[in-house]
Amino acid sequence: MCRWAAYLGRPIFLEDIVSRPGHSLIRQSHGAVRCQTPVNADGFGLAWYGERDEPGLYRDVMPAWSDPNLRSLTATVKSHLFMAHVRASTGTATSRNNCHPFAVGRWSFMHNGQFGGYDTWRRAAELLIPDALYPHRKGATDSEALFLCALGEGLEDDPRGALARATARFEALARQRGTAPHVRLTCAFSDGRRLYAARYATDDHAPTLFHRWSDSRAGRAVVSEPLEVDEADWLEVPPGSFCVFEGDTVTITPFVVQPLREAA
Amino acid sequence: MCRWAAYLGRPIFLEDIVSRPGHSLIRQSHGAVRCQTPVNADGFGLAWYGERDEPGLYRDVMPAWSDPNLRSLTATVKSHLFMAHVRASTGTATSRNNCHPFAVGRWSFMHNGQFGGYDTWRRAAELLIPDALYPHRKGATDSEALFLCALGEGLEDDPRGALARATARFEALARQRGTAPHVRLTCAFSDGRRLYAARYATDDHAPTLFHRWSDSRAGRAVVSEPLEVDEADWLEVPPGSFCVFEGDTVTITPFVVQPLREAA
Amino acid sequence: MCRWAAYLGRPIFLEDIVSRPGHSLIRQSHGAVRCQTPVNADGFGLAWYGERDEPGLYRDVMPAWSDPNLRSLTATVKSHLFMAHVRASTGTATSRNNCHPFAVGRWSFMHNGQFGGYDTWRRAAELLIPDALYPHRKGATDSEALFLCALGEGLEDDPRGALARATARFEALARQRGTAPHVRLTCAFSDGRRLYAARYATDDHAPTLFHRWSDSRAGRAVVSEPLEVDEADWLEVPPGSFCVFEGDTVTITPFVVQPLREAA
Amino acid sequence: MCRWAAYLGRPIFLEDIVSRPGHSLIRQSHGAVRCQTPVNADGFGLAWYGERDEPGLYRDVMPAWSDPNLRSLTATVKSHLFMAHVRASTGTATSRNNCHPFAVGRWSFMHNGQFGGYDTWRRAAELLIPDALYPHRKGATDSEALFLCALGEGLEDDPRGALARATARFEALARQRGTAPHVRLTCAFSDGRRLYAARYATDDHAPTLFHRWSDSRAGRAVVSEPLEVDEADWLEVPPGSFCVFEGDTVTITPFVVQPLREAA
Repeated sequence: MCRWAAYLGRPIFLEDIVSRPGHSLIRQSHGAVRCQTPVNADGFGLAWYGERDEPGLYRDVMPAWSDPNLRSLTATVKSHLFMAHVRASTGTATSRNNCHPFAVGRWSFMHNGQFGGYDTWRRAAELLIPDALYPHRKGATDSEALFLCALGEGLEDDPRGALARATARFEALARQRGTAPHVRLTCAFSDGRRLYAARYATDDHAPTLFHRWSDSRAGRAVVSEPLEVDEADWLEVPPGSFCVFEGDTVTITPFVVQPLREAA
Repeated sequence: MCRWAAYLGRPIFLEDIVSRPGHSLIRQSHGAVRCQTPVNADGFGLAWYGERDEPGLYRDVMPAWSDPNLRSLTATVKSHLFMAHVRASTGTATSRNNCHPFAVGRWSFMHNGQFGGYDTWRRAAELLIPDALYPHRKGATDSEALFLCALGEGLEDDPRGALARATARFEALARQRGTAPHVRLTCAFSDGRRLYAARYATDDHAPTLFHRWSDSRAGRAVVSEPLEVDEADWLEVPPGSFCVFEGDTVTITPFVVQPLREAA
Repeated sequence: MCRWAAYLGRPIFLEDIVSRPGHSLIRQSHGAVRCQTPVNADGFGLAWYGERDEPGLYRDVMPAWSDPNLRSLTATVKSHLFMAHVRASTGTATSRNNCHPFAVGRWSFMHNGQFGGYDTWRRAAELLIPDALYPHRKGATDSEALFLCALGEGLEDDPRGALARATARFEALARQRGTAPHVRLTCAFSDGRRLYAARYATDDHAPTLFHRWSDSRAGRAVVSEPLEVDEADWLEVPPGSFCVFEGDTVTITPFVVQPLREAA
Repeated sequence: MCRWAAYLGRPIFLEDIVSRPGHSLIRQSHGAVRCQTPVNADGFGLAWYGERDEPGLYRDVMPAWSDPNLRSLTATVKSHLFMAHVRASTGTATSRNNCHPFAVGRWSFMHNGQFGGYDTWRRAAELLIPDALYPHRKGATDSEALFLCALGEGLEDDPRGALARATARFEALARQRGTAPHVRLTCAFSDGRRLYAARYATDDHAPTLFHRWSDSRAGRAVVSEPLEVDEADWLEVPPGSFCVFEGDTVTITPFVVQPLREAA
């Protein structure tokens, strides 16, 4: 499983989320603290919003903890909205093009989870990507394909609906051609203004999703796992939820994936 | 344009072709000697055959001249049949998955050339890859897609015919949806026993293809450009040719690409 | 020879110097335009100042033109003072630790040039680095050693004098143990407030140094080679000069290197 | 702590030691099985002997489990004597030049362990390297410095004595300027004919060292940790031992490090 963290609020240095907390994303990637989960050493990535509409994007295949560029970037770049991801691949070769977050125009997207038997229906998933977006298909991951499919379903105008429709299509493929568990998904994405997140699974093991507002920081962290073990006020988002984070407001609504008869 | 070199004969250290000659592949990659062509610094690759059916494969995104692993590998590995490639990308991000040679089972393949407007019909080209071979689609290049398409056309049993049929399909796509020049192709491929090469273009600028037998070495080099500027005995293969190299024998026959009405 | 560019003025996106101009640093690195000089594909680096005293640092060993991280960074990060460098190594293995700029505390430093026969007196040069600074010695380049030696000579309080004394020590080593040309140096360095540059050689071939004020940008570019071929107003700094750039002011004074009897 | 494995015997594919066993070096590097030790994801390396005197050397900074080049190399290269190493760095940036094994001429060397407070006396350790060997100093590790110091002490003619004298000098530096534990060392090295190994510490925690002869393979594995958990016949080498492996013979003698009054 991968891990990720996002932030929305008063601008902070990226390191305040990515590397400084006791259970920061980079420490989580090392797996040294608890070690009940596999290490996340198969690449990492950052997407951050600044003056421009498009996010900055930094992705590499080294373990996050040993990259001096990452350390310097997170120590000097400030942002009011950013996402960070550490990856644990499942056997395939590591490549920058397979690292999260993915970005198209002003949208960025990252994901933790899996689609059952994806390798056997990868091509079918890629056929769900509209022609106009296909040049953005750079790697081979299910996550990038889901993002591009969701963009095609209208992410811009209807974030929740578009993600639900894209997920439904992937779920149908997993049910028809793949294996169980069909879908386990916890993702975050943004257009640079709002931060969105969803938690969903076809079984009882939806990957976790937490958020926490910090008064001192005037901002909110949204994460796959809490960043500090001794902070009691992390709020867990229940499975089947869609979150919209804007300013200091959280709006959580059901995330309903309508079963499809046909995948494509 | 990329450059490549292949060898078939009595086993030699890879460096005897890759790095030692005055105009070796690595020196060509640096472009320092003549400098009338762009530098080839966007990755390189080696495929070599040994005891096993499958070739060894080594690919990386650094410039070939600055990689100590490459230097050590070519100085210590011997092979009776190998291929080497230096890449000059045209703007896209460099990735190991986009580096030649490509390998599937015991087959390896490398290419120098272009298909006109490929980016606009990449997805259509990928649809020509049979389902069973699609998991081998790792990158985004036209060359890998052509190789997988040719495997689907029966490269194993009919190398010349399968490559011609695959090329015809790509040519049809380039004519329908792409731009001129539609096809410029000089490729080499092997199953570990024979070495095959083709030279072809839809215009008058088929990338060059040469070969040269060395008595002292008891082997043959097959290259996109001669490895020594002062060796007069490099034989140029004419455009529209298909070559089979086996032992010390060369068989050159026409490479005819039948125009297709429909691409797919 | 390496190439570099620096900027001081109203904050701009790094790409305005690094990748956008017709003869930008990245285009220069490709060497495709003129091709009378070798390609600079052996790594690159950026140092930029922002809110913190320490500069951000980004260095990698890929060719600058093919790194999507670099492209994204320069498109999204703004700075009032930054430096960029592309490297052409001379045979040694490429390593991030050998890429310019180098940074210690709030100081950053980059260099184009050479010290004659440096490999034969590398250890002697390293002995000129004070104990307290030796942990910052990460790579094997002459440039990093010169920077650390200059810091030891008091760069903080007397930039021109400290660099001259460090250069004198290196020059003495080159004369005693190395080869001619003993010193060719064009370097830039900064503490985040002022930008300094020096041009010096023991022969008639000091690497070039130019600067140009832009009214529209309200900033100054300081470069090893002009960024646009059609801009006539680049000012060349003569050999034997030391420059201090602060705000819109340039102060150029002689850079005098006193001959030493003993190197260490 | 790092981990390593070496092999001496009838030529085998490197993967038979490096990646195939249930507790192979690559699986150990992932730390997924037992997880009571930190992950070894900070680079890896191979040195293998073939037809030439000098070993082949392959080192990279990615985690060993995700590098397709490594997988292909170990699947196709056969050797009668080779060494493999996975690294767990302790905070410093990962660099190919800091990856084991190190090689000079026909000698190769790898190490697991530590010297107390090495960072504070790195320069003093480097001064123990003879001038003639200093150009081989490429990185910043204690292991490379120990190897070069041992070569200077006469590793060629007296492997045990030279290593003991080099270790004594490092131990003296650790006692004078460093911290406890002063020395923990388990290393392996070779000239391409014999394989040598030593186990030593100044406290009770010398890193482990095992070996095991395989009749079916007609070869011996020498490792920092057993490669199969269910093989009962791994022989542990006691602390304070020096091993010479040649053919099917093992010679184990005391490894005595004479205390020095002065380090240099």
